[in-house]
Amino acid sequence: MPSLSIGVFDSGFGGLTVLKALLEVIPEADYLYFGDTARLPYGSKSAETVTKYAVEAARFLNQQGAQMLVVACNTATALALDKIARSVSIPVVGVVEPGAQRAAAASRKRKAVVIGTEATISSHAYLRALQNLGVEAREKACPLFVPLVEEGWIEHAVTEQVARIYLGEAFSDGFESADVLVLGCTHYPLIKSLLRRLAQPHVTVVDSAESTAHVVRDLLGHDVKRSVKSSLAPLQFFATDSVEKFRRLGARFLDRPINSVQHIDLKE
Amino acid sequence: MPSLSIGVFDSGFGGLTVLKALLEVIPEADYLYFGDTARLPYGSKSAETVTKYAVEAARFLNQQGAQMLVVACNTATALALDKIARSVSIPVVGVVEPGAQRAAAASRKRKAVVIGTEATISSHAYLRALQNLGVEAREKACPLFVPLVEEGWIEHAVTEQVARIYLGEAFSDGFESADVLVLGCTHYPLIKSLLRRLAQPHVTVVDSAESTAHVVRDLLGHDVKRSVKSSLAPLQFFATDSVEKFRRLGARFLDRPINSVQHIDLKE
Repeated sequence: MPSLSIGVFDSGFGGLTVLKALLEVIPEADYLYFGDTARLPYGSKSAETVTKYAVEAARFLNQQGAQMLVVACNTATALALDKIARSVSIPVVGVVEPGAQRAAAASRKRKAVVIGTEATISSHAYLRALQNLGVEAREKACPLFVPLVEEGWIEHAVTEQVARIYLGEAFSDGFESADVLVLGCTHYPLIKSLLRRLAQPHVTVVDSAESTAHVVRDLLGHDVKRSVKSSLAPLQFFATDSVEKFRRLGARFLDRPINSVQHIDLKE
Repeated sequence: MPSLSIGVFDSGFGGLTVLKALLEVIPEADYLYFGDTARLPYGSKSAETVTKYAVEAARFLNQQGAQMLVVACNTATALALDKIARSVSIPVVGVVEPGAQRAAAASRKRKAVVIGTEATISSHAYLRALQNLGVEAREKACPLFVPLVEEGWIEHAVTEQVARIYLGEAFSDGFESADVLVLGCTHYPLIKSLLRRLAQPHVTVVDSAESTAHVVRDLLGHDVKRSVKSSLAPLQFFATDSVEKFRRLGARFLDRPINSVQHIDLKE
């Protein structure tokens, strides 16, 4: 096969941490990244609305030629993975199951704490995935982490104070002994070292972006090795709001410059 | 006239602080409130996207029978007031001009600090409005205040620390003597007493929600007194996302229970 094209989709910029992990693990592939920045965030919205938006994004990437779709958004995965998978003709991978599998592999106490947006947590997608793997879960919504990361307050006294409050509430009431912390939001890898520092030393921090990239590589198997990266446009970005802001903020999440972004209007 | 119907529109819940002020100042009127909760927030989005959304909302309220439209969203006012006004056949009032007028009336030093969302601040709408009134303005984006208010951390150590940082940066570099603080976002009235406490005693805090309600009453003049509140549906709410969440979160902003909310799909 000449080039393998993977579609990656998120409500905005957070999914770029998944793309970053994919680029490390599968550098041979071409990537189409879609950020629904005109309608972000998904994390505070209802299942119905998130499903509608996510299905539109998935169909768009399918039409653009993606041969596999990574739903790089915990909220969309948690609320709409089945419907997304049914709406396109290509394999679809979400971020919840890979994170839960990695957590289950790492937990000796069979107790994990999952942090994420309000919508991801209310869906109990991680709770169910972990229960199926024999791990008890405490879920904790941390709605301030996304705006703190977007404000750029990565190593900041306020972010540390907020994290202490959230983690203190999560690792309590029977979950003091939990030995895994799952980062159930694609923004959280940016504050991973802060969270690593504040969590107890025996706690393994599971980054669902990394776990997802490994699952995608396993799924692709030999196709990856036979793929030849196209020299034309190995990385293409699409956004529904300002392309200038996408370039600027996106570079922080991807950890490399973003040169060209195409503005896309979905069917509004 | 039997009943006077005022349309009030915001990206979400913040505009309910304007509705609250309107209910105090013009209790005789009926109100139609539209919250575009499926696409909130507007504050971090581009002028093009905000304009498209705001025009759709304005037309909807016009069709529902509103005789006047209050754009109870600083971002939509700052970025799209003219286009909104041209898209409907009823008078349109925004929140920026009333806030600026009140600030100009209160400032002896002719120096004001304006705080708001990223989009409101980048638009420089307050800067221009205040300059026209002979007042110099320092504008400061405070993107963490909205999520802090929505987290319910109203009187909270973290919110106080964030406010100290933001106000410290704003009242500096020649603006130490500014004697007015304009709350240029409809979420901020909820942390008004915290901001009042942290600002210097000589600083007047201007709430653009209150100022707007007074301008609307002045504009309506005699119509208000002749209006008879309809007993059927004096308060109607429309939201584009979850009505349950609108009822729950909205009550905090409106400071009274919200019973019935209608779900609306705009033309997506």
